[in-house]
Amino acid sequence: MATVTLSLVVSKCKMPLLLFLLVHIDLLLCQQFIIPFKAPSDCGVEEFFDISSLSCVKCGPKQRRSTTGLSCVCQTGYQTVIADKLSVTCQQCPRNKPAVTKDGFGCIRCPGSLTDEGKCQCPQGTVLVERDINGNLLDEARCEACNGDSPALTIPNRNGDRCERCQASFFNSSCVCKSPNVLAGGLCFPSGSLSTNVNPSVNYPQLKFSVQSAWFLENLYSSSAACLVFSNLTACQALGNMCVMNLHSFSGISTDACGLFNTIFRSRAALSSTQDISYWRVNLPWLYYGDEPGLASRVLQTNPVPIGFSFRERNKNTDIRLLAAVYNVRGEFLRWEPVGGSNLQLCPQPVTKQAAAFSFGIAYQESCDLSVDKLFDTHPEPLFYDVFMDLGGGENKKLLPLPTLVQNQQYNGRFINQESMKNWYLTRRMFLVDTLSGREKSLTSTPKVIRVASSVKIKFQLVPRTQEGQVYPPLMIVTYTDVPINDSKTRTVSTTFTMEYEMDQNEAHVKTDTALGVMGGVAVIYSLLKTVSWKRRIASPLIDVKTTLKFLLFYAGDLANVFFAVTVGTGLYWLIFYKAQQFVSVLLPLPAQEEQFVTYIGCAFALKMIQFLHKLILQVSVDIFFIDWERPRSKTSRTVQGESKRDPAPVSIWRTYFVANEWNEIQTIRKINPTFQIIAVLFFLEVLGFSNLALRDPWSTLQRSSQDYIPSYSLTLRYGLAATLWLCIGFLQVICFTVIYERFVEDKIRQFVDLCSVSNISVLLLSHDCFGYYIHGRSVHGHADTNMEEMKNNLKREAESLCGQRGLLPNTEIQTFQVSLTKCLRSQYDRIRDSLKRSGPSMINTSETQHKAYHTMNHFLGSVIDHAYSDMDYIVRDKLVFERIIGMEFLEPTDKSIFYNDEDHSFRDVLFYGNEATLLIFDTLFFCVVDLGSQSFVLAAVLTYAQQTIFRFIRNTLGRKNLGQKTLVDDRFLI
Amino acid sequence: MATVTLSLVVSKCKMPLLLFLLVHIDLLLCQQFIIPFKAPSDCGVEEFFDISSLSCVKCGPKQRRSTTGLSCVCQTGYQTVIADKLSVTCQQCPRNKPAVTKDGFGCIRCPGSLTDEGKCQCPQGTVLVERDINGNLLDEARCEACNGDSPALTIPNRNGDRCERCQASFFNSSCVCKSPNVLAGGLCFPSGSLSTNVNPSVNYPQLKFSVQSAWFLENLYSSSAACLVFSNLTACQALGNMCVMNLHSFSGISTDACGLFNTIFRSRAALSSTQDISYWRVNLPWLYYGDEPGLASRVLQTNPVPIGFSFRERNKNTDIRLLAAVYNVRGEFLRWEPVGGSNLQLCPQPVTKQAAAFSFGIAYQESCDLSVDKLFDTHPEPLFYDVFMDLGGGENKKLLPLPTLVQNQQYNGRFINQESMKNWYLTRRMFLVDTLSGREKSLTSTPKVIRVASSVKIKFQLVPRTQEGQVYPPLMIVTYTDVPINDSKTRTVSTTFTMEYEMDQNEAHVKTDTALGVMGGVAVIYSLLKTVSWKRRIASPLIDVKTTLKFLLFYAGDLANVFFAVTVGTGLYWLIFYKAQQFVSVLLPLPAQEEQFVTYIGCAFALKMIQFLHKLILQVSVDIFFIDWERPRSKTSRTVQGESKRDPAPVSIWRTYFVANEWNEIQTIRKINPTFQIIAVLFFLEVLGFSNLALRDPWSTLQRSSQDYIPSYSLTLRYGLAATLWLCIGFLQVICFTVIYERFVEDKIRQFVDLCSVSNISVLLLSHDCFGYYIHGRSVHGHADTNMEEMKNNLKREAESLCGQRGLLPNTEIQTFQVSLTKCLRSQYDRIRDSLKRSGPSMINTSETQHKAYHTMNHFLGSVIDHAYSDMDYIVRDKLVFERIIGMEFLEPTDKSIFYNDEDHSFRDVLFYGNEATLLIFDTLFFCVVDLGSQSFVLAAVLTYAQQTIFRFIRNTLGRKNLGQKTLVDDRFLI
Repeated sequence: MATVTLSLVVSKCKMPLLLFLLVHIDLLLCQQFIIPFKAPSDCGVEEFFDISSLSCVKCGPKQRRSTTGLSCVCQTGYQTVIADKLSVTCQQCPRNKPAVTKDGFGCIRCPGSLTDEGKCQCPQGTVLVERDINGNLLDEARCEACNGDSPALTIPNRNGDRCERCQASFFNSSCVCKSPNVLAGGLCFPSGSLSTNVNPSVNYPQLKFSVQSAWFLENLYSSSAACLVFSNLTACQALGNMCVMNLHSFSGISTDACGLFNTIFRSRAALSSTQDISYWRVNLPWLYYGDEPGLASRVLQTNPVPIGFSFRERNKNTDIRLLAAVYNVRGEFLRWEPVGGSNLQLCPQPVTKQAAAFSFGIAYQESCDLSVDKLFDTHPEPLFYDVFMDLGGGENKKLLPLPTLVQNQQYNGRFINQESMKNWYLTRRMFLVDTLSGREKSLTSTPKVIRVASSVKIKFQLVPRTQEGQVYPPLMIVTYTDVPINDSKTRTVSTTFTMEYEMDQNEAHVKTDTALGVMGGVAVIYSLLKTVSWKRRIASPLIDVKTTLKFLLFYAGDLANVFFAVTVGTGLYWLIFYKAQQFVSVLLPLPAQEEQFVTYIGCAFALKMIQFLHKLILQVSVDIFFIDWERPRSKTSRTVQGESKRDPAPVSIWRTYFVANEWNEIQTIRKINPTFQIIAVLFFLEVLGFSNLALRDPWSTLQRSSQDYIPSYSLTLRYGLAATLWLCIGFLQVICFTVIYERFVEDKIRQFVDLCSVSNISVLLLSHDCFGYYIHGRSVHGHADTNMEEMKNNLKREAESLCGQRGLLPNTEIQTFQVSLTKCLRSQYDRIRDSLKRSGPSMINTSETQHKAYHTMNHFLGSVIDHAYSDMDYIVRDKLVFERIIGMEFLEPTDKSIFYNDEDHSFRDVLFYGNEATLLIFDTLFFCVVDLGSQSFVLAAVLTYAQQTIFRFIRNTLGRKNLGQKTLVDDRFLI
Repeated sequence: MATVTLSLVVSKCKMPLLLFLLVHIDLLLCQQFIIPFKAPSDCGVEEFFDISSLSCVKCGPKQRRSTTGLSCVCQTGYQTVIADKLSVTCQQCPRNKPAVTKDGFGCIRCPGSLTDEGKCQCPQGTVLVERDINGNLLDEARCEACNGDSPALTIPNRNGDRCERCQASFFNSSCVCKSPNVLAGGLCFPSGSLSTNVNPSVNYPQLKFSVQSAWFLENLYSSSAACLVFSNLTACQALGNMCVMNLHSFSGISTDACGLFNTIFRSRAALSSTQDISYWRVNLPWLYYGDEPGLASRVLQTNPVPIGFSFRERNKNTDIRLLAAVYNVRGEFLRWEPVGGSNLQLCPQPVTKQAAAFSFGIAYQESCDLSVDKLFDTHPEPLFYDVFMDLGGGENKKLLPLPTLVQNQQYNGRFINQESMKNWYLTRRMFLVDTLSGREKSLTSTPKVIRVASSVKIKFQLVPRTQEGQVYPPLMIVTYTDVPINDSKTRTVSTTFTMEYEMDQNEAHVKTDTALGVMGGVAVIYSLLKTVSWKRRIASPLIDVKTTLKFLLFYAGDLANVFFAVTVGTGLYWLIFYKAQQFVSVLLPLPAQEEQFVTYIGCAFALKMIQFLHKLILQVSVDIFFIDWERPRSKTSRTVQGESKRDPAPVSIWRTYFVANEWNEIQTIRKINPTFQIIAVLFFLEVLGFSNLALRDPWSTLQRSSQDYIPSYSLTLRYGLAATLWLCIGFLQVICFTVIYERFVEDKIRQFVDLCSVSNISVLLLSHDCFGYYIHGRSVHGHADTNMEEMKNNLKREAESLCGQRGLLPNTEIQTFQVSLTKCLRSQYDRIRDSLKRSGPSMINTSETQHKAYHTMNHFLGSVIDHAYSDMDYIVRDKLVFERIIGMEFLEPTDKSIFYNDEDHSFRDVLFYGNEATLLIFDTLFFCVVDLGSQSFVLAAVLTYAQQTIFRFIRNTLGRKNLGQKTLVDDRFLI
């Protein structure tokens, strides 16, 4: 179709309509613009690849494609003739000039044979001359010999068309290296300078084989000899590079790269060392620190680097400026290169992220998998880096060489650098990717193995007790991985670049342990006190297994508090001191240094769990009884009428139901709203971004941009942050609850006490055998079982203070007491209680007995309160301040029971309400432990919610059951 | 110190102790290994940079540093002499041979003058001869002229030491381009072939200036001429590249790059087009599609690409294989390059992430800021890409050229590609970074401007209604940014690479709107029904403003449901169909296409909010009264004794308190636990990783590795996911609650009904004027105000079915009723109620009146229930099924009130409990709306919790106040 259009379309501009129509036809007929794929290599011998149409096009007559495949050249024996408009035609050369000149434009006669391309060929050592000195083409080419003897000293050049001076090492003879001199690497060495017996193998200990490296074979001897004999600087560097490619490893034999380097190093001992560093010899690269035992620790831990790092304000200095002298594999110095960007970091990352590696204090770690294929393209030959730290100083800039620890380095077969520090053998110079030394046959063959620096770590150690951010010389730790190259194209190798900041944590550990020890001791005493108090409250003087167990239970709780205090203190210390410091004086513990800390948190949690369960069990087994003061109304009002006595109107049980129902409801109320707590903590951590404070970097900003590098989290900081936040929000809630909510909205505890008073019911709670709480609820109006009108009147009268006060003692208002019972009272109580509990063979009997016992108990306790039994009398007194503090009564109730005034409503100790501290700490620890395990605040929140719900359900269910059992109130009314 | 050691140390190995000591001294004295920084450029003229010691070292006598600075060479006039061990000495040349040869080793006499370096200099057009043909050094150098005439045709080579053939375009004359021929770019053009008047400027419309580009100045004319006259392929490409660097822009003048290209293009119209594509002419690059109006839509939306994309299973095909033919700026074809990795993506990213761009369906977008400095290093000259899509086909691989839309392209001053599609002018070929064309003075000067492809977007459009994953030809949209280069070194330029997948959403929108319309119509009818029902229940036949308002309120709720159903359906549709499809048949709406959807969600939320508030207000203003059936005991038991009547024991109010208290507590219970709901949703979304389902990619895996590319979120999917998850968990909770919890643990509603019965109290609830609910709570035992023993016996007797049934009618069990009251009854009720409400001048009077009214009401309602008033009698009947369904009563209560049996406890409609659907949907919408606004599920959860808490508090507080007012129960007992 296209041919049809050609004759019609002359100019697109003049005939848009026509072209439009044609194009339309074009579109419809050709169906999309699809073309076949052709690459230059797909074209035939007589075709060339047309870079315009991206297709193969036939060459002109007598032409064939050129070596690139992108154009055509004349066939052998044809000379190129340029026609009009540069078009090329090919014309056969005449018989008498059968060869084509090198430029292809002329025909010539040859003195000798022809090459396959139809050009003249000259014997070795001679040059081909086709034109005279003025450029005129000769009829017959000439082959001229180069004069190799002094003083001409020439050999043919690379093109074979001129004589040039030969290499300088041939100075004393001619351009032929005559025996006994040794020709190697294009140089002529005097005999006897170095044994030619060198070992060109590269060892791969990971793969347990070695390779006869083509590069070593070609260059090891010549580099060594040139370094040793001619003091050639690049040759020395090249030799050093070969030693580096062998991972600085010494073996027994001295003819491998490092052995030769060492030989030359020792031979240079007579010369002065370079730069006043005794390990650095003139002309040689600096590859090794000494091999004296303990040198590493002296190099790394003696003299601080003379700069101070600071995170903040005017003196802010967090830049780590590293410089590298870069050499290529041939030993040529390429440039000074600032380290950063991608030169040591093989993983591609945005520049802003990579730059974070060189900001002091950011725990940088970046890993990735690199395709081995790509490495061939990007690293055709290794580059060698001598890394220095730039100490600044303007004009007189100073550099500090970074000691390097090669993890794979061998010393007589031992991996000494994987042993303890005193055996380390520090070195210098490293490379990233070596695809060269593993080539066995030739330098262009595929390597059998490539070597990659799979882990590069730069480690800073803070000078102990520094206040100015001083560090010791940073150590570079390099681990190389040997990757065998098989057919599989998909092979990858993973690499990591790490910056690590460490400080000696021993001092911190000692402080922590001291604090633990001291507080642990105090806890023992406190727990002993609690045990004694408990013994007294159960009125048992014996020390038995139960006592020991009880002591251990108390101790678990106290020890948990100690662990909690120490760990939260530690976490908070790091959070504040690390994140807020100006000059660097502390660095975060490394993950390996955090083990002890995590153990402590685990201990705190386990012990707190024990304490919590203990309290839970005590709470759901507390003894409780509601004493109804109401007496049948008919009895009192109509006591004169004898016959009415036999059927008094029964006292309604509904007040007791009401009180029991309310008691049931306040069992699990707390001073905080646990769900609000979780949601608030989550809000701060995840929405406001407080979690970013736990990152291993020195910044205290809450929002991080997606462009920033995000380091890993520090467990210590995470714990410190989560626990502090949880506690702070908890305290705030408690304060708001007690100060605002209870005062202005509702106070469930006070409401309950009021309710007791209004409903004419007292509550006796016995948490121990002979200790408990009493809420005096006797109505000041005598009757509470009345109608709405009277109730309202009563309430109004009380509000207007027209009636007596509610207190147990006349003219007092104190309604709540702690009670220490005498054993006598308790045993009497137990006797009645037993008949309450005992269940007979049939339900009805039991029920009857129970009700009788209930009435007996009601009557008995009422009488006791009314001082009816002189042998079970009681006195009311205030508790001493000290008694309050240590939670123990000094007076033993021998003759009379003792009622302690208790305005603080301490009966709430048998409710969740009175144990807020324990619950809060338990929740905190639960949240933190889940978070430490999962590194997810959301999961921690979810599980904490589940935990709270489950324990609240258990407490409610068991508490309700207990209440029903102890007070005989039917479960159906506890709703 | 170092000098002292030298004489002692002979071999390190032999004397380790000595060396150790010395090293130790070294360490102590030298204090760290700090060296001064020196770069080659820091060294003086007579120094060289010692690459071993990295310091400046003085050269030997008569030497100066070489150009690289890394070695020394002899000074001018000194020849190099090699001494022993290759050491170099310099020797002055004798007087008669004052010049040094070019290789530096010999001295020679010159025919003419000397250069500054002391070497011989020859006049132009001649070559310098220092050696004879065999390499022997001449005593005196010669300058020989090159024969420029045919047939020799030679000129001096670059080094000036040989005559070589000159360039082929000089074929017809000599090596001099004689007038009138034109010499340009090293070529000799015949006169008149092309006007030499070309415009070498590059326009920067963003910066409003243009630059006389050095590159254009040098190459524009020669490339155009060589392309036009010699049909040189690389010249044509180079010309095309210049047009591309000018952003394909046509201006009025035809002498700029694109004008010249177009001229040549038109001149080639007579030749056949390449590859059967009429826009692609022989020898020329394909730069333009036609400029016919509407061509773009025909190219982009007519023929699908003959491959099908599939996300799953056996036919999985998500690879987008793009190939680019790469040309350099000189027009040379470099290679075929698979697009991927970093060739179109300027932002550095790990390979795995970058590869995600070419997986079909992943909405890839990667942005970053590039340092302009770095761009100079990495892109010294631009590369040009002709991008094709690889259609596969094994041996006969086919390619589809990608049309390109250059946003900045100008056509006679108009940015046509920023207009509507019918004006688009598609092109081919693009570049990424051009630092070349902006150089004004010379090719090595700093450019005034660089141009960067700041946005590259490849856009796929799905063929409508395809079932086989077919797409139209992808469009590449390129936006270039011109960056002026000033002194500031810190300048950055941001670039973006985007893959976009689009499908026509009109059909989906039509479907959505249809659904909305139909369901909206149904909603009108339903709301009308509700209004009618409401009118009947308030017994008002008038249609007034209030009725209209009520209708609107009902309609708001129903319309909200319609919007909600449609949006959730849409979200779920996309979630299921997009994520689960095998062959691609749908693609997600783009953010711009989601606006309508978001509007619908907003409507649903706003309307639901209105409905919710309406319900809330109705609930907290409901009429309620507790009817106490208990009669004073003395009255009944001793009715024969006249005198005892005057003082009956009052009926205890505590049962009423208990019932009121319980009613207060069940006001806000729900069929779900709202907190659990939030926590569970958060758990699924954030911990289990369900949120990853909302990512704009076709995968449905929940866990993504940090190595993976994470695309952005789709609002549609996020909403669909969150709403579905919320509803599912809600439904599950409702089912668990009603099926398991209420049956086996506790059912608060049934407990309340039971409690009424046990406490001998009925509840009358009036939600409308003449409609409400009645809970019949008359005790089957006659008395409930009794002691524990009797209560237990009563309960036991009932459990053993020894007494009557609880129902209102004899021998029925139905206790709960819906009631339709007659107007008469209601007016009577209102009269008593008024005196309850009315407050007198003093408190006491009021209180007394109130109590009287309370008793009156109690008596009145009790009598009504007992059929005591014949004019206010009632009947009990079942509700028809249809009545239940549409929620309306057909019978009007004219003579008698109607009590409808209601076993479903529908009185819960005035509690949260009975409105779970509304609450659940409101919560869902609240959660989703917050999430859509903030893209944070955690924040949505936090705010939803806050919302629930606030509304629950409001409902509780107002409800409690209402209860206190209506039933005269003191607030203090509602705890």
